Amino acid sequence: MDKFFNPESVVVVGVSESPANMGRNIVSNLLEFGFKGVIYQVGRERGTLFSRKIYKSVLEIEDDIDLAVILTPALTVPHIMEECGRKGIRNVIIETAGFGEFGEKGRELEKRIVNIAKKYGVRFIGPNCIGTLSLKAGLATPFVSLKNIFRRGGVSVITQSGGVGFSYLTIFSGEDIGISKFASIGNKLNVDENDLLEYLIKDDETEIICIYLEGISYGRRLMELAQGTNKPILVHKSNIGTHAASIAHSHTAALACDDAVVSAALKQAGIARVEDRETLVNYLKILPLAKMRGNRLAIISRSGGHAVVAADICERVGFDLAPLSREFLKSIEKYFRAHVIKLTNPLDLGDLFDYDVYAQIIEKTLKQKDVDGVVFLHAYFSDTEGKPTRALLSRVEELTREYKKPVGVCLTTDEAEFVKLQDETEYPLFSVPSAVIRAMAASRDFYVGQTGGNPPLVKGGKGRLKIASKIIQACLRQRRNPLLKEGMDIFEAYGIPVVKTVWVKNIAEAVRAAEKIGYPVAIKIVSREILHKTDVGGVRLNIRNEAQLREEYKNIISIVCHDTSFEGVVVQPMLKKGWELILGAKQDANFGPVVMAGLGGIFVEIFKDTSIRIVPFGKSEARDMLAELKGYKILQGARGDKPYDIASAEDAILKLSRLISDFPEIKEIDINPFYILHKGQGGLSLDARIIL
Amino acid sequence: MDKFFNPESVVVVGVSESPANMGRNIVSNLLEFGFKGVIYQVGRERGTLFSRKIYKSVLEIEDDIDLAVILTPALTVPHIMEECGRKGIRNVIIETAGFGEFGEKGRELEKRIVNIAKKYGVRFIGPNCIGTLSLKAGLATPFVSLKNIFRRGGVSVITQSGGVGFSYLTIFSGEDIGISKFASIGNKLNVDENDLLEYLIKDDETEIICIYLEGISYGRRLMELAQGTNKPILVHKSNIGTHAASIAHSHTAALACDDAVVSAALKQAGIARVEDRETLVNYLKILPLAKMRGNRLAIISRSGGHAVVAADICERVGFDLAPLSREFLKSIEKYFRAHVIKLTNPLDLGDLFDYDVYAQIIEKTLKQKDVDGVVFLHAYFSDTEGKPTRALLSRVEELTREYKKPVGVCLTTDEAEFVKLQDETEYPLFSVPSAVIRAMAASRDFYVGQTGGNPPLVKGGKGRLKIASKIIQACLRQRRNPLLKEGMDIFEAYGIPVVKTVWVKNIAEAVRAAEKIGYPVAIKIVSREILHKTDVGGVRLNIRNEAQLREEYKNIISIVCHDTSFEGVVVQPMLKKGWELILGAKQDANFGPVVMAGLGGIFVEIFKDTSIRIVPFGKSEARDMLAELKGYKILQGARGDKPYDIASAEDAILKLSRLISDFPEIKEIDINPFYILHKGQGGLSLDARIIL
Repeated sequence: MDKFFNPESVVVVGVSESPANMGRNIVSNLLEFGFKGVIYQVGRERGTLFSRKIYKSVLEIEDDIDLAVILTPALTVPHIMEECGRKGIRNVIIETAGFGEFGEKGRELEKRIVNIAKKYGVRFIGPNCIGTLSLKAGLATPFVSLKNIFRRGGVSVITQSGGVGFSYLTIFSGEDIGISKFASIGNKLNVDENDLLEYLIKDDETEIICIYLEGISYGRRLMELAQGTNKPILVHKSNIGTHAASIAHSHTAALACDDAVVSAALKQAGIARVEDRETLVNYLKILPLAKMRGNRLAIISRSGGHAVVAADICERVGFDLAPLSREFLKSIEKYFRAHVIKLTNPLDLGDLFDYDVYAQIIEKTLKQKDVDGVVFLHAYFSDTEGKPTRALLSRVEELTREYKKPVGVCLTTDEAEFVKLQDETEYPLFSVPSAVIRAMAASRDFYVGQTGGNPPLVKGGKGRLKIASKIIQACLRQRRNPLLKEGMDIFEAYGIPVVKTVWVKNIAEAVRAAEKIGYPVAIKIVSREILHKTDVGGVRLNIRNEAQLREEYKNIISIVCHDTSFEGVVVQPMLKKGWELILGAKQDANFGPVVMAGLGGIFVEIFKDTSIRIVPFGKSEARDMLAELKGYKILQGARGDKPYDIASAEDAILKLSRLISDFPEIKEIDINPFYILHKGQGGLSLDARIIL
Repeated sequence: MDKFFNPESVVVVGVSESPANMGRNIVSNLLEFGFKGVIYQVGRERGTLFSRKIYKSVLEIEDDIDLAVILTPALTVPHIMEECGRKGIRNVIIETAGFGEFGEKGRELEKRIVNIAKKYGVRFIGPNCIGTLSLKAGLATPFVSLKNIFRRGGVSVITQSGGVGFSYLTIFSGEDIGISKFASIGNKLNVDENDLLEYLIKDDETEIICIYLEGISYGRRLMELAQGTNKPILVHKSNIGTHAASIAHSHTAALACDDAVVSAALKQAGIARVEDRETLVNYLKILPLAKMRGNRLAIISRSGGHAVVAADICERVGFDLAPLSREFLKSIEKYFRAHVIKLTNPLDLGDLFDYDVYAQIIEKTLKQKDVDGVVFLHAYFSDTEGKPTRALLSRVEELTREYKKPVGVCLTTDEAEFVKLQDETEYPLFSVPSAVIRAMAASRDFYVGQTGGNPPLVKGGKGRLKIASKIIQACLRQRRNPLLKEGMDIFEAYGIPVVKTVWVKNIAEAVRAAEKIGYPVAIKIVSREILHKTDVGGVRLNIRNEAQLREEYKNIISIVCHDTSFEGVVVQPMLKKGWELILGAKQDANFGPVVMAGLGGIFVEIFKDTSIRIVPFGKSEARDMLAELKGYKILQGARGDKPYDIASAEDAILKLSRLISDFPEIKEIDINPFYILHKGQGGLSLDARIIL
């Protein structure tokens, strides 16, 4: 992979003497960026360009070549790839468009290229990409003419869209963010984001990795790579698409729509997901500073108004404005006119105009144990205060290094001054209070959230595989999904508690079952065709005696009497007061097995109040899954109610994660509801829907 | 008021020859901005400054003076005000700090100033403010030295914080937003935001008004002023403070916390509330364009990646990406290479590089009936495409005027080019896709939401006042709140349906009442002390017979047996299946009577799912209040349930608005729950809590 970024020789294929030729831009970029190796040119016609020969084929070149960049019509690419292979070139960038994204013929071409690459062991980026940059090597392969305005630094970029990638580079250069490497991956037929990520994680020059993606190919590998490094990884994932949700089969599938799974997975892997490029830039500016290791921020502001605005934003992003200690306030009191300013956090500097004192106050604040970071809101006039501001900034830079806590600086001044100052200093500057505070929150989320790798999959009980396997294989043979009772048997094998459930085929059996269980009972229809029993009236609750049972039995079977899918009815006891949860699991196309939890029924439907984890995860994640639900307070016992048995749900979540992992044959599992009783009384699956 | 912005003569009080004197900055600002009238100077010592005399008192000046600007120590201000009054100056700006914000002594001074102003009929701005600007008059009164870098235009600013106000001006100047007038109102002892708003609404030069507020003085007047104008008003209200919520007495008060009321009121008044200054700037840039009259946006992008990102943002802010008509797509098809790009909305211009065609496509898109506005995402290299980009922009400017639909333009290019282009063109330019789309959404929200003035208060039934008044007066005499039964009587007088409720004092009465009502019944404790009956076990439901009633009666009175506040028990029938709403009303300190609606119980507590309106409002607003609840779907009949009687709740909301308006003595009303049955069966108040 290193040859993509540090080749000793490059051949550009698709060069001509014509001024309209785009391949020549690649060569001129390599010259502009000062490529340190040898450049060769290949084109349809021999000739001379940039006082270099144009060869007719890579095979004509005598020396070894590390990297080929191809920009020729799509139809010619397989032949050129074949020649590259024969020449012994092992790294190729195909910038040509007109492949899979254009239809059937393009996909044919793609297959041919992939096969040729396989044959010769060639790794290739693209097609349909705009190339790569590596500032250290002076490598610049885009087919649009670039000026080398970029600053060298630790940020590397992987992008699925050339346009978005370029917009990053443009903004990074405007914001003085130093870059190391850049790769546009296009249709990612061979090298994908994970291959590049793996390389960049190992790359000494890369400190932060930004990835723009419209689709995730191998999500699980992405997670594993991210979990194995301390380098911050920022993913801007677009193409959110909510259509998938509407065609899903079960609640779990519908609620755990692709994008929610992506968010959960990235978070679990310690990857920061950014919503737009502004946020990305703010992250990049703040992350190289000292880490924000906690949630306690201090705001120091030259304007009371800005302090108020900042306090509001802190509340919105969940920062605690740490109360400043009495001794600290006492120690800074002397700087202020008596009774002029209420000393508090946010700290309004009011009519204090001494820049040395500003520095002392910032230092004293950083020294506070209860402060994890400082935001300094500075408003000034460039003509009179430009100089002391520069001195203060360089002091702030020292302080943030010395105390290992970040100081976010937001400047309100005229535009020209801001741009000038940004050029002069390395320290990240913000011009909007909300931006700096949100960036500090990003730092907090990144560093506070970091966990130590992946917990092992929870253990399953003995004999579970045998029982579950038998049922699942039988269903697969009969090309059907497990029925309620079968699902419950599988749950029991995994130690997921289920309600006592008697499956009956006629009213006489139902009456016997009810007597055995004891009234009141509930009955539920069993049918292959009915997925949402409640919606069609297939659930009858609180049946108090035999007469009522006979009546309801008649009602319930009338729903399906014209349907050959009727499989009987199950009889269950009515339970004590509890709360309905919905627990589910599914195989995600990109991330593999995932588990979902939510408050049942209307909560999940109306408020979309769910949480998701990618399997495997441990007990603490199972606990967090429930705790992060908005409705968690209900489970803790809201409004004088006693707390519910949350532990039983945590346990069921873990066992569900084992079940979905053991059987790739299972597409979706829905426990709706998982009914939890008051604390100490446990919880029960009242239903079991398993879709194979 | 006009003399604050167009005075013919100004006296600056607090000027001295000392270089450290701040008053001199006011004079130098007036000179820098080219003030068209006469400037006088007054100071403690006679002298000369800016080749003008320094007088010792305004009384020494022979000519009439329109406006005085005072910047002297707080203690001297009353004396100077007195002199101004005697001199016949009727407009004063007091920039001095050190008044009410500094403690008791300052508040004393404030009272004296207010009285002096009253005596002479002086209007004054401040104290504790940074002054005013009026570019047309060349008036600039801030005490910090300014350069006249401002562009004249239609935006006027009222600000409660000098610092925030200056930051607006700084950013406006950077973004080429033209300003007209600026006023910092400080402690607003005499002139407040409403006085200035009234003036600016009438001011011919002002087209858009921005207000920064930390507290709202007379919210109702603010609403009335806003409702009486078509000029866009943008309010940046900070100091959100959530503490009020925790000390409130009832659900309504707690849920309708100050900030939620502010948001509801501003929205109702057609005022756009902005969260931060970035959003403010985006609004200001987009609002002068043609109005966004609907929700259907078309995205045209030079980069596919940007198009995808934009589509995601559109989904987030609720835009419909209007499908483009077949004829339209056919008409532009010819511009594209066959099979290269899928023509859709967002429209990816792909490898189309012809700027004339861009203009034609934008024009054809604007012509589409189903398109209310266009966002054009342009990415280009300044050295090669700067010229055609400029031509395209001027064409876009024409098109947006011609078709009266806005075209939001977002440019991705290098920073220097962006700044340069921004200087060259009047057309608003954005550099971030999310910013331009959010700004278009703001335009939509502003123009689509505009309603035609205030509806009258709903009529109340005859005789209601007499009944309610009698109960309320009795309670006031006894210094207590109405009891449940009394509250229900008031509701009935207003036509708000209540459940049959029999108030009993002992078990024998309870048994008789239950027999009359018919089992099953519910009983609830009546006590002056208990506000949240459910929380203490004061509500017993589903009592099926006399034995159970006796048992539960014993239980319920045990809660309060040690309490002299016991007032008996109410007996109510158990109802058919329904949904609990919570309806409430309160007197807001700033906005007067407000009404709140939410889904009852846990929904309102956990999900804060409520909506608020300021009284008066009409039937359609009452309907919207319910419709905007997240849980509205439940009321419409979710998951196969039949729809509930929403109309009954609308009616109760309107009648509640009448009740809270009729009696300023009522502080809060809580109907928790208002129980609605299935459609056509009405709704009932099951409880009535009225706090006086």
